[in-house]
Amino acid sequence: MNYRMVFNVLGKTLVILAGLMLLPLIVGIYYQESVIFSFIIPIFGLLAVGLPLSLLKVRDKSLYAREGFVIVALSWIFLSLVGCLPFIISGSIPNFFDAFFETVSGFTTTGASVLTLSTTTISLPKSIMFWRIFTHWIGGMGVLVFMLAVIPADGGAMHIFRAEAPGPSASKLVSRMRHTARILYGIYLVLTVIEVIMLLFGGMNIYESTLAAFSTAGTGGFSIYGDSMAHYDSVYIQMVVASFMFVFGINFNLFYLILIGQFSKAIRSEEFLIYLSIVIVSTLTIAMNLSISFEQSFGESLRHAFFQTTSISSTTGFSSQDFIKWPTLSKTILTVLTVIGACGGSTGGGIKVSRAIMLFKISSNGIKKNLHPRSVHTMKLDGELISKEVERNTYVYFILWVLIVAFSTLVVSFDPACGSDVMTPFSASLTCIGNVGPGMTALIGPFGGFATFNGLSKIVLSIVMLAGRLEILPMIILFAPRTWRRG
Amino acid sequence: MNYRMVFNVLGKTLVILAGLMLLPLIVGIYYQESVIFSFIIPIFGLLAVGLPLSLLKVRDKSLYAREGFVIVALSWIFLSLVGCLPFIISGSIPNFFDAFFETVSGFTTTGASVLTLSTTTISLPKSIMFWRIFTHWIGGMGVLVFMLAVIPADGGAMHIFRAEAPGPSASKLVSRMRHTARILYGIYLVLTVIEVIMLLFGGMNIYESTLAAFSTAGTGGFSIYGDSMAHYDSVYIQMVVASFMFVFGINFNLFYLILIGQFSKAIRSEEFLIYLSIVIVSTLTIAMNLSISFEQSFGESLRHAFFQTTSISSTTGFSSQDFIKWPTLSKTILTVLTVIGACGGSTGGGIKVSRAIMLFKISSNGIKKNLHPRSVHTMKLDGELISKEVERNTYVYFILWVLIVAFSTLVVSFDPACGSDVMTPFSASLTCIGNVGPGMTALIGPFGGFATFNGLSKIVLSIVMLAGRLEILPMIILFAPRTWRRG
Repeated sequence: MNYRMVFNVLGKTLVILAGLMLLPLIVGIYYQESVIFSFIIPIFGLLAVGLPLSLLKVRDKSLYAREGFVIVALSWIFLSLVGCLPFIISGSIPNFFDAFFETVSGFTTTGASVLTLSTTTISLPKSIMFWRIFTHWIGGMGVLVFMLAVIPADGGAMHIFRAEAPGPSASKLVSRMRHTARILYGIYLVLTVIEVIMLLFGGMNIYESTLAAFSTAGTGGFSIYGDSMAHYDSVYIQMVVASFMFVFGINFNLFYLILIGQFSKAIRSEEFLIYLSIVIVSTLTIAMNLSISFEQSFGESLRHAFFQTTSISSTTGFSSQDFIKWPTLSKTILTVLTVIGACGGSTGGGIKVSRAIMLFKISSNGIKKNLHPRSVHTMKLDGELISKEVERNTYVYFILWVLIVAFSTLVVSFDPACGSDVMTPFSASLTCIGNVGPGMTALIGPFGGFATFNGLSKIVLSIVMLAGRLEILPMIILFAPRTWRRG
Repeated sequence: MNYRMVFNVLGKTLVILAGLMLLPLIVGIYYQESVIFSFIIPIFGLLAVGLPLSLLKVRDKSLYAREGFVIVALSWIFLSLVGCLPFIISGSIPNFFDAFFETVSGFTTTGASVLTLSTTTISLPKSIMFWRIFTHWIGGMGVLVFMLAVIPADGGAMHIFRAEAPGPSASKLVSRMRHTARILYGIYLVLTVIEVIMLLFGGMNIYESTLAAFSTAGTGGFSIYGDSMAHYDSVYIQMVVASFMFVFGINFNLFYLILIGQFSKAIRSEEFLIYLSIVIVSTLTIAMNLSISFEQSFGESLRHAFFQTTSISSTTGFSSQDFIKWPTLSKTILTVLTVIGACGGSTGGGIKVSRAIMLFKISSNGIKKNLHPRSVHTMKLDGELISKEVERNTYVYFILWVLIVAFSTLVVSFDPACGSDVMTPFSASLTCIGNVGPGMTALIGPFGGFATFNGLSKIVLSIVMLAGRLEILPMIILFAPRTWRRG
């Protein structure tokens, strides 16, 4: 393990976080809030630790896969530990377990909350609420990708990028890592700004529209109000948000392809077409299910079905209705969407549409192999050959995913909050590993919350959210004793 | 496709079924029941169709893997279609969907029932009840294995054996397939008889003890009474049944090893030791959970915990209490046991302990590969190298397993019986693919039943039970258009 290099990169990450915390500080100064010291203290702390580390002389700048995983896992844990300080210092979320859970939920863009927010007024100081939702925007594209974009990086940058980027295979858009990172953040920023402007047209003020856009862009799901997007009883606003949720669930490589004029190649992407089909089929099925069960108009059903489908499919987790009251079929579909999630290379979570496609192809090839043992089958995605390595990582990821969900369900089952209900711990685990937010029972539903869980459940679910956001391997490798042996 | 050979083997299977139906017929004659014609009619029908087919001249006796899968899948469907006739003809279960579901549930040793049985008297004619539970015993070891044991088989026997035998790898005990099949059935019969004798000592009559032993041996779970094994409020009887449930969940190869004097090799089997550990850890955890939650004595808790753990772990599905009322942790553990199931090569279901071990090793190797890309890792079970083929079949099986559970959950979600509850269709799918029987919600719990589901749900769950019992591939290959193309 190249410890000097690991500490050096960690130091840079902390400095970046200090820089990012300036934004809520400015918001606090603007609104003349007394809680601004809750940002000033962590900023000084971050600089005090981060600057010396980032200035550390590193002779051997090489990084291997192992260090890449460890750096990413450690960075995210440190970010969350420091990121929860404003909540604790300001007294907004005084309990450590609650504040840590909320921050991890923010950075991982899960959006599961321990807060009981008012449905009419902004319950937290505006700068604290800004920080709470800004974490979604930071975590969506990834803080290390941000670091790669602003600080000159060296040989091991690809390992860091790979370990943090969502999806089965992280591809560099352009030959230089730094440029790739800048292009990604550029697209991210522009799309966010467009959403802010469109929401302003709907009558939202700049503060609320910015935060709604942060939450959408990161596919997070934190809201300012306790009734999520049902608060804005405007078809226009809800449709703008729904459309952007769908957009932020798309692989960013496609936006790049469109930027460089390869529109037809982008639109023919296998993953995009399947993602689109999933959203269309789910929306229509849920709309019919709702309109029959609730005897409401098909138009009204379609509106909520589209909103909820894009919300869960992109793993954002906003809601326009309390879908816990929806019939079984709709809720089962939403549960399946929680598992599948968005496209690889998007800000969304879940196992990713491309992985679902590959799992399907792996099993299909396996069946053929049983019928014709000597036949040879290759796997392609978008016409490109899938390497044996990516294929193996896909099914290994899937096995680990199931093991983590089972483990997490078992631990959360210890929690008295679950009563006698198996669905609550299971759904909580699914929604946390998928970075979605709301679960399928009233306790953890869109208008419920994770506050009633005990400390153990909150810590385990926090680790599960991190495992989900970082695609499992970094977290497992961090905790594996093998990683820390000499060599 | 070698159609002549497929039809020939199918014919033999039907003749065997006619022979097996003589037993309930004899029971009916003994008790002088008027429903005996419900067996006489199918027996003549089976002979009329089966005999000509089984006497079909077959020149080319070769069978490939594809034919093996198709024969097994078709046989099980035909067995179920004919097996449900006594229920329909006698009027005991007049509805076809119900009778088919009950029969599939019997043969696949699931034990999920559409009947509401009395808790005090035997609700069905004794011969019909005998047939209902005898199907467990037939299905447990497999009807085609039985055929291989009694009828001289040819070159393709191994393909049939492989396709029907539970577990990731079917191994011949001795060089000749026929002898292997006879040894397996011999062990099966002897263990069943021992259980009958031990239950007689507990004060049960010969009729009830025989049926209880059939149900245990096949790890089925059908009971004579509506309150399952809670009916026998005897610690002795419940402990005998629990012990035998555990025994029938063990790989039969181990009993063979013990028979030929290799006791120490048998006891050191990795799969057996893990199976044993799972049962011990689950029993103790559930016992503690129950004794704390219900403030009942640890001894009483231990008794029910042991009974329910062996019952679900072996995928039998008997119950000594209504575990739906148990706390979340206990129910989550039972759900995990439903998934894992028993050992490969036993009469139990689930994904099998050995597959769970291999999935664990596959993911562990995958993590190591990510840290040291050029390293080579082999997989061993009980010191023996696992071939790439078995490894691939294991993860392919697992992916297909998840896909089937998801598909089945979605279809059953259409059923109005589910109300607004996602756990019911999910748990129903899990318990059916695992061939366990009871689910984790009141509707489908140990004292509930599958009667309220509609026809679509019953057909889909029947297919899922068959897929679970036949380890997925035969059913998928039967329905794949590719199978029926020329060549």
